[in-house]
Amino acid sequence: MSEVIDILKDLISRRSVTPEDAGCQQMMADYLKESGFNIESMVFEDTTNMWARKGSEGPVFCFAGHTDVVPSGPTEQWHTPPFEPTEINGYLHGRGTADMKGSLAAMLVATKRFVAKYPNHKGSIAFLITSDEEGPFINGTTRVIDTLEARNEKITWALVGEPSSTHKVGDVIKNGRRGSLSGDLVVKGVQGHVAYPHLAKNPVHIAAPALAELSQIQWDKGNDYFPPTSFQISNVNAGTGATNVVPGEMHVQFNFRYSTEVTAEILVERVHSILDAHGLEYSLDWTYNGLPFLTDEGLLVEAAVKAIEDTTHTKPELLTTGGTSDGRFIAPTGAQVVELGPVNATIHKINECVKIEDIELLTDMYEKILINLLAND
Amino acid sequence: MSEVIDILKDLISRRSVTPEDAGCQQMMADYLKESGFNIESMVFEDTTNMWARKGSEGPVFCFAGHTDVVPSGPTEQWHTPPFEPTEINGYLHGRGTADMKGSLAAMLVATKRFVAKYPNHKGSIAFLITSDEEGPFINGTTRVIDTLEARNEKITWALVGEPSSTHKVGDVIKNGRRGSLSGDLVVKGVQGHVAYPHLAKNPVHIAAPALAELSQIQWDKGNDYFPPTSFQISNVNAGTGATNVVPGEMHVQFNFRYSTEVTAEILVERVHSILDAHGLEYSLDWTYNGLPFLTDEGLLVEAAVKAIEDTTHTKPELLTTGGTSDGRFIAPTGAQVVELGPVNATIHKINECVKIEDIELLTDMYEKILINLLAND
Ligand SMILES: [Zn+2]
Ligand SMILES: [Zn+2]
Repeated sequence: MSEVIDILKDLISRRSVTPEDAGCQQMMADYLKESGFNIESMVFEDTTNMWARKGSEGPVFCFAGHTDVVPSGPTEQWHTPPFEPTEINGYLHGRGTADMKGSLAAMLVATKRFVAKYPNHKGSIAFLITSDEEGPFINGTTRVIDTLEARNEKITWALVGEPSSTHKVGDVIKNGRRGSLSGDLVVKGVQGHVAYPHLAKNPVHIAAPALAELSQIQWDKGNDYFPPTSFQISNVNAGTGATNVVPGEMHVQFNFRYSTEVTAEILVERVHSILDAHGLEYSLDWTYNGLPFLTDEGLLVEAAVKAIEDTTHTKPELLTTGGTSDGRFIAPTGAQVVELGPVNATIHKINECVKIEDIELLTDMYEKILINLLAND
Repeated sequence: MSEVIDILKDLISRRSVTPEDAGCQQMMADYLKESGFNIESMVFEDTTNMWARKGSEGPVFCFAGHTDVVPSGPTEQWHTPPFEPTEINGYLHGRGTADMKGSLAAMLVATKRFVAKYPNHKGSIAFLITSDEEGPFINGTTRVIDTLEARNEKITWALVGEPSSTHKVGDVIKNGRRGSLSGDLVVKGVQGHVAYPHLAKNPVHIAAPALAELSQIQWDKGNDYFPPTSFQISNVNAGTGATNVVPGEMHVQFNFRYSTEVTAEILVERVHSILDAHGLEYSLDWTYNGLPFLTDEGLLVEAAVKAIEDTTHTKPELLTTGGTSDGRFIAPTGAQVVELGPVNATIHKINECVKIEDIELLTDMYEKILINLLAND
């Protein structure tokens, strides 16, 4: 069995359900020390983070990732115990195999191989690892970045190991992410009895035309890199449960995933102007989950595309679709950021698994990216 | 102290929280027996009902009412203990004083006085009393009516003692009620992640335009006796609580209070055609709570109006507004039905009370109605 799969099995057997790290980072630190890395553990509240770096010069290439996993869900629905790595027909099953312990194992082995071949490589190699990517992401990557920024330590290129691939490993590189903006709306009415409608003011009746308008707007058409901005209502709630009472208020939660064709400020302003135009009395709290970012060209994208082509002889697609990732915390520092990892078909699901061959290929890709960026020749 | 207030105090001190009768009907039966009434107790499940009748001939005048009361709510918010009748400045305080034990006491005393003056009156006098008007109204008036209908025993005129008055006793007679029709709607979508909107189908987005249309329709303009039909959404609910999940379905409960200008069938058909026109996939369960009814003219209305005019020297208004009452179960048998009772300002509230003088006036009104309809001269 290959070293990368041994390491992956070790990581899977550690029950690092978010925000637990369960010793994963200590194991990674021990491994990286052998290659000459300097290790900093950064514990914030319930979250364990690691900043590991080899070299003091720029440019800085950084592998970014997380050791935490989402809960397994009902274990009786799994074909194999979720925290016991199990091989079946060339696949390795277990919680976190795809998201993203497979990537972590590949990062470690790729780094060891690269350092062995190029002991005097250019620049620095770093690891930014957290245990709260799957949780509230308050004490993870964002706080490590704050610490680095405070001492003016910069990342040039970040490769986030999120499972970016769709059908086969390396078919998709995520080279950006949409912005995410959430709203918490309370539409105010006047509670009353359905038999006396003139004494009440039904907030659902008042809100419905505004919600209809909001859900039918085309906010933009997207662009070469981003799909169109999307508005989705996630929760609505009004009423006491009694069927003869007109509710006093209506609660609506919604979320935007937005392209670089708009800004959060524009979206906020448009929503308010629509609610105002409908004459609603309301309160509205906004949460800014992350700005959109894009690494549309540059050495990192070139290095990653070339590494994939050299490994699988196919050309990856560059996409910005899908959910948020910790890349949103790294990109604002000015770093180039891409995500490259295994196939995401089973992530966060029962019977999560990866093709063993894919993790070997991913190790090759990561090593080639290091070579493309930092080899001294 | 007058007899009617003594009886009212006795009724108030019995804790007949729906569907409990707490001996109220037995007390009433004992009282009516003295005037020659024949008593039938009809117990269905948890509900106690009484059918009392004096005379075997038609026409049949029937006092209809209920001994049950709504719960007191937090007793520490009452100025007086809710089940201890307490006089303060000419008012009697206690749960049920206005809804509707004051009316029951007035009915008893009016009947006793009338029978004493007209021992050989025309037709029959009856009492239809239940203990579940404030509850689910399944085993109360509707089942007594079923029993009477099965043996072809008919009510000519029903006077329901619900608190119909607004500012002073007798200012309003309810001579009908709107129909009530409820709908339980589930709009179906496809659950998903807000980051992948093309894989989901948001039921809130689909439903909003249809709900906007439904809440803005003028269903009819009402008529001389009925206010316009009113549509009210009472509850809406969608979402898992998570802010990144597109809900799989949306639940909407709504209620119509409708005039005689439409029918339940017309409303049902219009709602379905609007939902269909918006392309909704949905299920919709209907509950028919009661047909509208109207007693716009006839001897009963004349007798009641004249009795009020003779007592207070003011002319009552005839209205069909407000909530449902057990009149809806009696009217379909062909009976004329009116509601006349005390001022309803405090019903179902903390510190429910009636003006003592009003109950004396109501007793006079009831007696005069009996005289107007059944006196032999
Ligand atoms: Zn992940
Ligand atoms: Zn009542």
